[in-house]
Amino acid sequence: MKNILFTVEYDGTGFVGWQRQPGQRSVQGELEKGLALLLDQPIELLASSRTDAGVHAYGQKTNFIADFPMPVAKIRRAINGFLPDDVIITQVEEVPMEFHARFSAIGKRYVYKIIRADERRIFDRKYALTVTRSLDVEAMNRAAQFFTGTHDFKAFSGKNGQINKSTERTIHSMTVSEQPQNAVHIEVVGNAFLYKMVRMMTGSLLNIGYGKNPPEAIGQILEGKMKRIGNTAKPQGLYLVEVYFDQEKLRRTL
Amino acid sequence: MKNILFTVEYDGTGFVGWQRQPGQRSVQGELEKGLALLLDQPIELLASSRTDAGVHAYGQKTNFIADFPMPVAKIRRAINGFLPDDVIITQVEEVPMEFHARFSAIGKRYVYKIIRADERRIFDRKYALTVTRSLDVEAMNRAAQFFTGTHDFKAFSGKNGQINKSTERTIHSMTVSEQPQNAVHIEVVGNAFLYKMVRMMTGSLLNIGYGKNPPEAIGQILEGKMKRIGNTAKPQGLYLVEVYFDQEKLRRTL
Repeated sequence: MKNILFTVEYDGTGFVGWQRQPGQRSVQGELEKGLALLLDQPIELLASSRTDAGVHAYGQKTNFIADFPMPVAKIRRAINGFLPDDVIITQVEEVPMEFHARFSAIGKRYVYKIIRADERRIFDRKYALTVTRSLDVEAMNRAAQFFTGTHDFKAFSGKNGQINKSTERTIHSMTVSEQPQNAVHIEVVGNAFLYKMVRMMTGSLLNIGYGKNPPEAIGQILEGKMKRIGNTAKPQGLYLVEVYFDQEKLRRTL
Repeated sequence: MKNILFTVEYDGTGFVGWQRQPGQRSVQGELEKGLALLLDQPIELLASSRTDAGVHAYGQKTNFIADFPMPVAKIRRAINGFLPDDVIITQVEEVPMEFHARFSAIGKRYVYKIIRADERRIFDRKYALTVTRSLDVEAMNRAAQFFTGTHDFKAFSGKNGQINKSTERTIHSMTVSEQPQNAVHIEVVGNAFLYKMVRMMTGSLLNIGYGKNPPEAIGQILEGKMKRIGNTAKPQGLYLVEVYFDQEKLRRTL
């Protein structure tokens, strides 16, 4: 038996999200189907993050334990032959048996892509949020600094049956920056994220970028002195870029 | 009555092509539907090029004659409100009554986008051709020069009920060049193109890029001394970039 860790890239457009749902097309479902065909046994995957419908990933992580008829080095190519064209395994590693893609994760990095344009954009519509209003990127970046540190992010949490669980999270860094071709990227690294948290944070930053509220509003919201501002930003701009693990845990018993 | 010329940008992925087909989703059909809703009268569009399923456009041109209740300057925004999110009107001009998007065209520019990668690409799969083999771009560019000038392009023509019509066409320029981010673009400007001609030319150039035939093969094929090489390149890499008109015809009577 081996514990195998996949790095997965996918275009979230055609999926109901990561999580398997009966009768719906999910990333987990497609991967499990491909693995079952390849390995001729049912496989259940554990993922670092349950991304929503429309959210993309460059570096989702998922693991499973199975008996393997082939060397680890051959798995990547073999499994990719059984996957549809909107998902691909980019890396395969063998990890210690106690490794768990979700519980062993110590942090995640997300990027939210925004494109400034005079009009809605045809070719980017599923891969970024188009903003036609002017955007004060510098104010957004100042506002983002209020998110860093450890806070109660309850105001930035969607309902997902997680009542009574802690809503305290730590944001290690968050930057809003100009990118080539009129893009603006919001990059955030944190220990863990609540349901819809990045999209809600993005919505508030956009509200500040439009000049509707000052950067200090973020501090007020986190302290519970003000209601959350802005909307939940659309899923198509969001990318799960990287998942961080305790390197010792990742290698220990191998 | 006014003759109105639209510049249209579209993502070809979700269409059966430009041309209206019963029960299918076409660019022409969606535009005509939007115009009928906006203007409350049936509209029939004429286009410069009947792009195939999956082929994209930055600068398709289409015109129609109608009675207009609004100033020309207001049409663009109004019609875009009636279009789905994979097609947009980028420019609206009033042209002389005798102007015809197809017959008044004197040339077209297409770009075929190729991306070199070690593996199939998730996010580019509908917008470029991924090539995992090594590609001799310099040889492709030399080969492309054999296409320039006036030739019988019968060998580079798909069957489309155009029997007995002339297959002579003039290519003004053709270049194959390295682009940022491992892309290779094939850019071709000609007076007119036969059905599937650009994709067949691209397929032959790829064959040469793979080192299967020398650049001189193109000359041999055009002279009828050799059969066409390579396949018809997939539609998703092809973009109709620009249509050229006789500037005098475009402005004359206005």
